[in-house]
Amino acid sequence: MLIDFQKAAEILKNSQNVYVISHQSPDGDTLGSGFALVYFLRNMGKKANLVCSDEIPPKFKFLSEGYADEDFEPECFIAVDIADKALFGEKTAPFAENIELCIDHHISNALYAKNTLLNPKAAATCQVLFELFEFMGAEIGKKIATCLYTGLATDTGCFKFENTTPEAHFAAGKLISFGVEHFKINRRMFDEKSMARIKAEQLLLSGMEYFLGGKITMIAVTRDVMEKSGLDENEFEGVTSLTMQLEGVEVGITAKERSDGVYKVSMRSSGRANVSEICALFGGGGHIRAAGCTVEGSLDDVKAKLVSAVEKAVEALGE
Amino acid sequence: MLIDFQKAAEILKNSQNVYVISHQSPDGDTLGSGFALVYFLRNMGKKANLVCSDEIPPKFKFLSEGYADEDFEPECFIAVDIADKALFGEKTAPFAENIELCIDHHISNALYAKNTLLNPKAAATCQVLFELFEFMGAEIGKKIATCLYTGLATDTGCFKFENTTPEAHFAAGKLISFGVEHFKINRRMFDEKSMARIKAEQLLLSGMEYFLGGKITMIAVTRDVMEKSGLDENEFEGVTSLTMQLEGVEVGITAKERSDGVYKVSMRSSGRANVSEICALFGGGGHIRAAGCTVEGSLDDVKAKLVSAVEKAVEALGE
Repeated sequence: MLIDFQKAAEILKNSQNVYVISHQSPDGDTLGSGFALVYFLRNMGKKANLVCSDEIPPKFKFLSEGYADEDFEPECFIAVDIADKALFGEKTAPFAENIELCIDHHISNALYAKNTLLNPKAAATCQVLFELFEFMGAEIGKKIATCLYTGLATDTGCFKFENTTPEAHFAAGKLISFGVEHFKINRRMFDEKSMARIKAEQLLLSGMEYFLGGKITMIAVTRDVMEKSGLDENEFEGVTSLTMQLEGVEVGITAKERSDGVYKVSMRSSGRANVSEICALFGGGGHIRAAGCTVEGSLDDVKAKLVSAVEKAVEALGE
Repeated sequence: MLIDFQKAAEILKNSQNVYVISHQSPDGDTLGSGFALVYFLRNMGKKANLVCSDEIPPKFKFLSEGYADEDFEPECFIAVDIADKALFGEKTAPFAENIELCIDHHISNALYAKNTLLNPKAAATCQVLFELFEFMGAEIGKKIATCLYTGLATDTGCFKFENTTPEAHFAAGKLISFGVEHFKINRRMFDEKSMARIKAEQLLLSGMEYFLGGKITMIAVTRDVMEKSGLDENEFEGVTSLTMQLEGVEVGITAKERSDGVYKVSMRSSGRANVSEICALFGGGGHIRAAGCTVEGSLDDVKAKLVSAVEKAVEALGE
């Protein structure tokens, strides 16, 4: 059932011994909203823990500074930023059937919870939670504001993405007025890279290929790049952005070699070409600006197939 | 004389035939506030032109879409984002003695104008101007909002830098509610690079050196890098950020070879080391986090001198 702030506030007030659940492969928004809610509930004198199927990545550890699990039997389960039961992950999957409240901003939310506080226009779940706290007239403080700001900043690419609404800026402004060290957070979230990552990006840039005079770019994350840089195949998150930085580029292709030699392909579009349609030709799919597919063959074969399909689509755009 | 919104509004209302002046080597804030003010004055039925000593860089051309100089004899000169007479540049220097109103956010403003509307806490001059327009109860519209948003976004590094205040976010939120295509603007301002620039960054990354286990990084923008990439020496703006992306780095050094073989050095600090003090050892200066100096010698000599001085400073920080 979709509920409003009033009802969500009542659920929080009446809850006891709460597990707040973040989704698997946790990001800044699910952890930011998760820890913010745990701290908020603890401030209300309740017992609350954050549970997540996966480990918290090191870059987000600062959200849990001073946090320790408490020992209690859970009576109430609240999911944050989890649009679907399939996203709980192994460890927390058993709780998915029994969610009292889900707080989310994904329009795709499957409404699996007993009660869902959903704002699909919000840039982040952290924004929904902040507006709920404001509605409740609650004291927030720097610690909770830091968690909420982190989710809002990461889900909007530091207020750069299309999903950044006036309300997202208003929330950010109010949150940093609590003394959030936004400069440090943003540096950690967006600028800092490991030496291996810098090496990997340098290798990818030096091997980047250009087609149709730069309207198409392609990088290949091969086993060779992984070995030379020292990054493992799960540590290339976000490298697709390298293909999109060239001015005038329409489609950027990233082909990542899996351990079985098959290539996992990610395509990005500047907005004119529909990469979802292109990836569908290879049995994949996604959105207009971001899609993916899987292609088998040697790197040269894979490249030839992909580039040929993308060239057709980009040529059809005209000037 | 420092003035308030009331007095600034009166000056704008009483002005006729206005030259709005942006500073030399124009950036997003001086052009954003300049064009916003020109469009605003024209909306009031006045004649107004934007004048600047230097050409408008291509990336900012969209701010002047549909703009053409009007033909009139100027009677009133307004400077935007110009802290000091020395920053007018050659072409507009003659007007510097006769500035009716200066609108600015630099705490270093030399108060050279007859009237100065200054808010040193504002993240950008565009924020000061937006607050003035709000005070005047003016209709803004998408075109003016686009100019103001651009200045605000560029001066805050898309709301990432330390100067981003709650008020900067509030202004951004209100501005994008006028339909500003912030996603496109941010892509152009922060993500798009020329092929030559991508090549240059790849060369700089592959040649980056690390000292004290990565607490110090150094890149050298040599004549060789300029030739191989095709960028000329004025097109390396912002490459210092490459030196600061390594996690744990304390000081990043960028040495750029001038045509006479002398090296122009920029240092950046994560905030612990005071690079202004280090650069002072070489006759330079600046701020704690960003400073510069000029060093003569071969690249090896220059590197040895700089790294030795920086190592001492970084070792003195302790862990």
